Amino acid sequence: MQLDLNAFKQQLALRKQLVDDLLQECLKEIDGYPPVIHEAMRYAVMNGGKRLRPILVLEGAALAGGNVQSAHHLACAVEMIHCYSLVHDDLPAMDDDELRRGKPTCHIVFGEANAILTGDALLTGAFEVMAAMAEKPGVVAARLLRVIREIAAAVGSRGMIGGQVIDLESEDQEIDYPTLQRLHSMKTGELFRASLKAGAILCGMAKPGIDALDAYAQSFGLAFQITDDILDVQGAEEIIGKPVGSDEKNLKTTYPSLFGLDRSLQLASDSVQACLDSLARFGTEADFLRQLALFTLQRES
Amino acid sequence: MQLDLNAFKQQLALRKQLVDDLLQECLKEIDGYPPVIHEAMRYAVMNGGKRLRPILVLEGAALAGGNVQSAHHLACAVEMIHCYSLVHDDLPAMDDDELRRGKPTCHIVFGEANAILTGDALLTGAFEVMAAMAEKPGVVAARLLRVIREIAAAVGSRGMIGGQVIDLESEDQEIDYPTLQRLHSMKTGELFRASLKAGAILCGMAKPGIDALDAYAQSFGLAFQITDDILDVQGAEEIIGKPVGSDEKNLKTTYPSLFGLDRSLQLASDSVQACLDSLARFGTEADFLRQLALFTLQRES
Repeated sequence: MQLDLNAFKQQLALRKQLVDDLLQECLKEIDGYPPVIHEAMRYAVMNGGKRLRPILVLEGAALAGGNVQSAHHLACAVEMIHCYSLVHDDLPAMDDDELRRGKPTCHIVFGEANAILTGDALLTGAFEVMAAMAEKPGVVAARLLRVIREIAAAVGSRGMIGGQVIDLESEDQEIDYPTLQRLHSMKTGELFRASLKAGAILCGMAKPGIDALDAYAQSFGLAFQITDDILDVQGAEEIIGKPVGSDEKNLKTTYPSLFGLDRSLQLASDSVQACLDSLARFGTEADFLRQLALFTLQRES
Repeated sequence: MQLDLNAFKQQLALRKQLVDDLLQECLKEIDGYPPVIHEAMRYAVMNGGKRLRPILVLEGAALAGGNVQSAHHLACAVEMIHCYSLVHDDLPAMDDDELRRGKPTCHIVFGEANAILTGDALLTGAFEVMAAMAEKPGVVAARLLRVIREIAAAVGSRGMIGGQVIDLESEDQEIDYPTLQRLHSMKTGELFRASLKAGAILCGMAKPGIDALDAYAQSFGLAFQITDDILDVQGAEEIIGKPVGSDEKNLKTTYPSLFGLDRSLQLASDSVQACLDSLARFGTEADFLRQLALFTLQRES
């Protein structure tokens, strides 16, 4: 399969716009008193993000042949969780970042205490939004509970949070390849996997399909991480919210630091091939996921 | 109804012990890699707390005539949420407390970054534990989703977290009575209410019973808060984890600071009467809740 870069970028932009609109609506549903925390929640979520995880949720739902609208709130919840993790990661006690995507981070604008509480509120709100989906037409309670469990496990102490713990521990020391793999798999891979699977589970996909999507998302997370590291080295963009080069974390282990640039590019390309292989059971309905995998090798941010 | 103080204290101690045992088991179920975050989670939860909220969960389940065992994990989840809120409230950017119940707070022992992540992990783990209850015999999926939604709403931006936002805003200024009521109702009242109701909802209690328990828990939260404030003034105990008198927050508005001690005692007593009134529809099976309400007027910590 060939990637038509411009056409695909347009598709991505359309989906990002849909997710942005859904998030605006969703945040209104949990708006209220006191105003400052809800303002901070909107600030943290409406942040110009790529919306990859909610796009995966909606793609999983579509591939299951289900009513994609029933997964709209699930997509929002997943993005709220991603945004909470960014707010907490940016805190002075964590990565101490003052900028994210060129804008002041949440604690710079709202203060540290409110930023901690904003992250807490987005995480809690995500579970409220998911549980409230029980009222939506066509949502099967048992599937929704499985979805909530998958997502909670993916972002909990043995998933995303555990990955951040390892990341902080290994900030000023080189780590070996198995630790690097584990770190990335926990810190970012688990939520990619849970997102794509959650949409599919909610809409009733059977186990073989779920397993295929799980394999795809695992390879996709890897390709995404390696290309992230490569972009970082190439200095093409401010990927992590601070200018490359001004970074005090030069000891941080990355794919290029472990393997060099050429070998890293090869590993990314292998992961993309693994993505394509994992989708063998699907027809053209999975072309968006195929293109998304190919796109990681071309992305500029 | 008379309170037999010693007999009731024994009952409370037995229930606290049951909850402690359940929490130990529950934390084992989400144990794993990396070790430090799970150690910190245990440290934050096995903290000698009174376990009032999980005791309310179990009492709600018992009053519904249901299988109380089916609510065991729910009780644990609620206490994990309470403990996460304490870990985050104690952080330097929040209340900056170094001691809680005479022991060093989580960030003193594990560092600030790990303490933020420990709170996050307990909150996330609580939702994982609740969603996983779907696998337990006798648990009705639709009820469980309602429970998750009630609890998430109670501890979210319009509940406990919102209350903490108001509390921080009003730290160095006097606030009026309506604001004080709103603050306490959001910061502590909502979770008391959700706890008692959640156990009852899970075990199938009908709406009139739930409404009665809601009224009870609302008055109970008020009685608990007023007596907390009174104990603070009387300096009988280190209630909030730091010696009374050494507190820099003397401007904090409390019931005694607004109404004086006598009027505060009367308000507490009125709230306890409201607790008893709200239980009119229940027979002797609600005697534990009646005694618990009366006990707030006698508690020493």
